[in-house]
Amino acid sequence: MSRLRPQDAETRAQRANGADFSEALARGLRVIAAFDEQQRRMTLSDIARVIDLPRATTRRALTTLVELGYVENEGRLFRLTPRILKLAIAYLSSDPVPGVLQPACERISREVGASCSVAVRDGDECVMIARGTAARPASVGLSIGFRLPLFCSALGRVLAGAMPDPELDAFLARLKPVRFTRQTVISKPEIRRQILDVRRKGYALVDQEAEAGIRSLAVPVVRFDGKVVASLNIGVQPDQVPSKTMIAEYAPLLMKEAAALRERLV
Amino acid sequence: MSRLRPQDAETRAQRANGADFSEALARGLRVIAAFDEQQRRMTLSDIARVIDLPRATTRRALTTLVELGYVENEGRLFRLTPRILKLAIAYLSSDPVPGVLQPACERISREVGASCSVAVRDGDECVMIARGTAARPASVGLSIGFRLPLFCSALGRVLAGAMPDPELDAFLARLKPVRFTRQTVISKPEIRRQILDVRRKGYALVDQEAEAGIRSLAVPVVRFDGKVVASLNIGVQPDQVPSKTMIAEYAPLLMKEAAALRERLV
Repeated sequence: MSRLRPQDAETRAQRANGADFSEALARGLRVIAAFDEQQRRMTLSDIARVIDLPRATTRRALTTLVELGYVENEGRLFRLTPRILKLAIAYLSSDPVPGVLQPACERISREVGASCSVAVRDGDECVMIARGTAARPASVGLSIGFRLPLFCSALGRVLAGAMPDPELDAFLARLKPVRFTRQTVISKPEIRRQILDVRRKGYALVDQEAEAGIRSLAVPVVRFDGKVVASLNIGVQPDQVPSKTMIAEYAPLLMKEAAALRERLV
Repeated sequence: MSRLRPQDAETRAQRANGADFSEALARGLRVIAAFDEQQRRMTLSDIARVIDLPRATTRRALTTLVELGYVENEGRLFRLTPRILKLAIAYLSSDPVPGVLQPACERISREVGASCSVAVRDGDECVMIARGTAARPASVGLSIGFRLPLFCSALGRVLAGAMPDPELDAFLARLKPVRFTRQTVISKPEIRRQILDVRRKGYALVDQEAEAGIRSLAVPVVRFDGKVVASLNIGVQPDQVPSKTMIAEYAPLLMKEAAALRERLV
């Protein structure tokens, strides 16, 4: 899973080497990632402050992004344009996992009347790459690109369970568990126990540990060669479906769906 | 609408000037955008060929993207990682239009039992930034990031109708209409007539001109100060809902929904 270790020995060496690393490209990507719900439009000085770089270098990145149509400005205020989505589409169309799983999510969410999502690992988090929402106003829905910690979400614990033992040990060693809700388990031995439990049972059930008001059951998605490439879940409001029903009905349903997709994930 | 004219006089001048344009950043973004459904995994040589750059400069961009976790490699094959979605989320969370319109799309699509999408202009195309799908297997659905030409889609003609006259003239002057289906109108005078018709009626109805099997009705989405920032549509299969019903029922519904959101689009 080389994608998950951008900081591994080889790439660190390349960076230390320096000749093959482009600071200008790295800065440009930092400028894009600097925008969010709180920072919708920013001046050059705002951006320089957020990404902690000198104004002159920030200005160059920004000017380039405007020229390429990824950023626009109204007077002194800069903001991202929808052209940014071209980059997302490049990923979503080139990775077989979202393409194969998106229709499955939509079908499953209709079938059970609850939201159904797919996540893949990115470092010590997982990121939602496909999603179907229930056809009801109170559906529990997370959006594509939404990130969850591995240690306290059902989607994440499935992915943690897929790590070889040494990798799982290293993950737990560096983990600093944070309480997201009153239910979040932050004891490392207990988190390890939960993850080993997922391996044994083949599913993870997590009750409101990552987000209040969301109970989630997830299973691994395995590709043709047996490698776990994603996790697939159904999320409900806790008063909507009892845990017992999720284990008895949703776990086998999701396992069956995941197994049916295996040969298409090449 | 500065976002729509990345090639305008000022930015061309900056590029000609050169000092403020970062080729390294531009190359890195081209490497990301090089991947798609046909080019899922590529060697360094493949990528250099697709983006038409020397191997050495392509290699530097690629090495940087691997170091930053946006690209991973298995042996000689490189592919994009889900970290790319961080860039999309930066846009989707910082632009108020997708945030405000996404829940509206989901609600409308449930209400009418058909897909409902929002598009914004990007050059001579429009790009889908929010979408709700109908809770039925045969729903007509396009994904976020999907692009349509302005001249032959309902979502696009609404955005073309919002251009000031000189801009519309320039758009039509440079337009080279391509036939996407048997129904696509490619006569420029007729396209102009259709766009002026949208201005007058307040909606666009397009029957299978952009895609076979999709009939679409779209209306403008106007922000607080009266500027058209997006278009909002309902798409159906042609044998599902007659045009007459779409005009009588969907047009007023979409106009009412768009009007209700106006004050929230700041």
